[in-house]
Amino acid sequence: MEFLTGVKEKDTMELNSLLRTCAGENVKVNGAVHTIRKMGTVAFVILRKREGLLQGVYEEGTAQFDLKDLKEADTIEIEGTLERNDKAPGGIEIRMKRLRVLSRSVEEMMPLAISKWKLGTSLEAKLNYRSISLRNIRERAKFRLQEGLTRAFRDFLYSQGFTEIHTPKIGAKSAEGGANLFRLEYFHRPAVLQQSPQLYKQMMVGVFDRVFETAPVFRAEKHNTKRHLNEYTSLDFEMGYIDGFEDIMAMETGYLQYAMALLAEEYAEELKLLDIGLPDATEIPAIRFDVIKERAAERYGHKIRNPHDLEPEEEQLIGRYAREEWGSRFVFVTHYPSRKRPFYAMDDPEDTAYTLSFDLLFDGMEITTGGQRIHDYKMLKDKLASRGMTEDGLGQYLDAFRHGMPPHGGIGIGLERFTMMLAGEDNVRETTLFPRDLSRLEP
Amino acid sequence: MEFLTGVKEKDTMELNSLLRTCAGENVKVNGAVHTIRKMGTVAFVILRKREGLLQGVYEEGTAQFDLKDLKEADTIEIEGTLERNDKAPGGIEIRMKRLRVLSRSVEEMMPLAISKWKLGTSLEAKLNYRSISLRNIRERAKFRLQEGLTRAFRDFLYSQGFTEIHTPKIGAKSAEGGANLFRLEYFHRPAVLQQSPQLYKQMMVGVFDRVFETAPVFRAEKHNTKRHLNEYTSLDFEMGYIDGFEDIMAMETGYLQYAMALLAEEYAEELKLLDIGLPDATEIPAIRFDVIKERAAERYGHKIRNPHDLEPEEEQLIGRYAREEWGSRFVFVTHYPSRKRPFYAMDDPEDTAYTLSFDLLFDGMEITTGGQRIHDYKMLKDKLASRGMTEDGLGQYLDAFRHGMPPHGGIGIGLERFTMMLAGEDNVRETTLFPRDLSRLEP
Repeated sequence: MEFLTGVKEKDTMELNSLLRTCAGENVKVNGAVHTIRKMGTVAFVILRKREGLLQGVYEEGTAQFDLKDLKEADTIEIEGTLERNDKAPGGIEIRMKRLRVLSRSVEEMMPLAISKWKLGTSLEAKLNYRSISLRNIRERAKFRLQEGLTRAFRDFLYSQGFTEIHTPKIGAKSAEGGANLFRLEYFHRPAVLQQSPQLYKQMMVGVFDRVFETAPVFRAEKHNTKRHLNEYTSLDFEMGYIDGFEDIMAMETGYLQYAMALLAEEYAEELKLLDIGLPDATEIPAIRFDVIKERAAERYGHKIRNPHDLEPEEEQLIGRYAREEWGSRFVFVTHYPSRKRPFYAMDDPEDTAYTLSFDLLFDGMEITTGGQRIHDYKMLKDKLASRGMTEDGLGQYLDAFRHGMPPHGGIGIGLERFTMMLAGEDNVRETTLFPRDLSRLEP
Repeated sequence: MEFLTGVKEKDTMELNSLLRTCAGENVKVNGAVHTIRKMGTVAFVILRKREGLLQGVYEEGTAQFDLKDLKEADTIEIEGTLERNDKAPGGIEIRMKRLRVLSRSVEEMMPLAISKWKLGTSLEAKLNYRSISLRNIRERAKFRLQEGLTRAFRDFLYSQGFTEIHTPKIGAKSAEGGANLFRLEYFHRPAVLQQSPQLYKQMMVGVFDRVFETAPVFRAEKHNTKRHLNEYTSLDFEMGYIDGFEDIMAMETGYLQYAMALLAEEYAEELKLLDIGLPDATEIPAIRFDVIKERAAERYGHKIRNPHDLEPEEEQLIGRYAREEWGSRFVFVTHYPSRKRPFYAMDDPEDTAYTLSFDLLFDGMEITTGGQRIHDYKMLKDKLASRGMTEDGLGQYLDAFRHGMPPHGGIGIGLERFTMMLAGEDNVRETTLFPRDLSRLEP
């Protein structure tokens, strides 16, 4: 019988406290042995801690243990004297005296050379050894940035009066209908995995006015490209009482500004490790789909094949155009053709061939789809009918509109893809913890 | 072509600004018409806004519109003069002058009387009309508290050096093996939905030392009880470099303290609406499974039928015991029998029939399962073998241990169940936005 009273201070120290400790002081730290470099009677034992690397110095005579007792990937606790050393990571090192081994690695060799600056191995090998490859400090840093993007999303939206929701991933019907659904059996009934929280978040606008969700979505697309996943994390928000779809873009711009500021402040170490320059989101250009499509085609000599959608190559050209013309790595492309948008998209009253919707491109890659939604019950029913869609399974969704829904709209951001572009990677699997694609279902 | 520069101030005001506005000022607000009460030549139009209710006063002569133009569930924008009125919600009201209708409700009647203080309807009806029933301000308040619990979890763990992760929900194998898995076809291969992020978060302890995830989990259990769901949100953390499993309980205690403080500070309005008293988490008793089981049986004259597990009734008795004996609504029950815990649970070296694990009970209901995990490669392999389990599909998981894993452990909290207990509800569906159970797959 005892009482728990909360987190207790430990006598082992973390990097940020060590950096504030005076030279000559006795300290205790734990960590994983990242690498051991022997130089005659001296050896450097680099510890990997969650905040970074820490150099331990082993000297025969000073250390009260045998270096042979240590190998890479053991986890240990050491006691020793803190010293300043400009050449060591963070400018400090520990002259090791005592050792306590916390756990042992069974193997002599790691399957990947994780202590190298760049983990020079194939993507395939990185994914096959995910629990090892991410121990490389630059590999793991990408996922710290991913955390920053998610955290900023929530914190910014809390500050703007949004409520966080959790919508079900198993359902009888999907949000957008159509193919590309994973199907499962749910207690002898057919069910699907949701492609998007779209219909749920719209229903919840009628309750909370503004909602968001950060959760997995599932798409059974048979793509095998560098930018598609079959399961990914979607940062979704939906907001009511908008004056127009510009309000949605303004909110996303606010998020991007907040996110970049948070990364600069709280994730500076990771940005430095990866040598990443943050994009400026102070002002983001927004331009019509048909206008920019033509302008980019003209400027770069591209032939438009499909007038209703953007090919990846066109997105790249638009990204280039935005950078050259407005000095912006972000660009909103607005007024997508109605035929390429789902039934709930609000058509432009001035020309119903187009919608009050947009994509956000970052360095020429789509990272967001958003727009205003239909809020009028009759308009929604007519749109469904005009597309030959059934109202089956949409009863509760339509009920929300029968009983009054404010003008509203929202967005979905692909988190892994956003991280990929931020980190300057060219394959979304590089910034996905455990990717799921056509061929990969493990680990 | 325009530039987005971030969120712009609107001329419509939210409740918190209105409360700080002087009487007599002209204001503009929007909201949904929650209810209209006519009293002769005066009428009260109650607006529902995300922060609460706001009273509009309609007087013939003052108002420049016809009350007949308004009905419940319309969404509107009004302009008028702010006045103090102690009898109105929040002590303020708006003398309405101008009206702009934003959207129309199609029906005269709502299917549920959402403006009543207690939505006196069956759970079944509430769930069948989820997009309507949650417009009742007490119904929606429960989900605001749910947000608070999740938000506190993340914010507290960020402050403790945890990294947020996103692990896949579709996999080739499940974490814990066994039955109760939803199965699906993944591009012509068999796959399952994860019951828990357990194996993934353990692998990531080897990378980030401390990790957490707040995400859905899926359990194909054929239970049909008031406390089980087939899909729920799990608040999971896993931490390395622990000195013992007390560190894990201490971390959860720290979270509970943080969460209760956050709720008291930021969700006071919702707590008041629901008349909820927050539990005290200053010190939480922890007591052995076998000891408390016997003590509770003895004190309350209960006959122990199953020595290896706790029946729901026993949990209630233990909850009662904790309250009577230690004045605590929380109690950690430690050292669960090894046979009832999964393979990765660390057995107590002093008696391997028990584990270094625990449940947390809140008012006699289990809301957390946690414990120390095996970190030694050989011990893990032996445990798998002793249970007759195959290592198939666990290759990468085991690799993490082959190459050194620190002593670690963690917890999973059922968010909806925690919310249920906090809100004093007796059915977990009351605190689940869109529950999934044996019979419910819609909406």
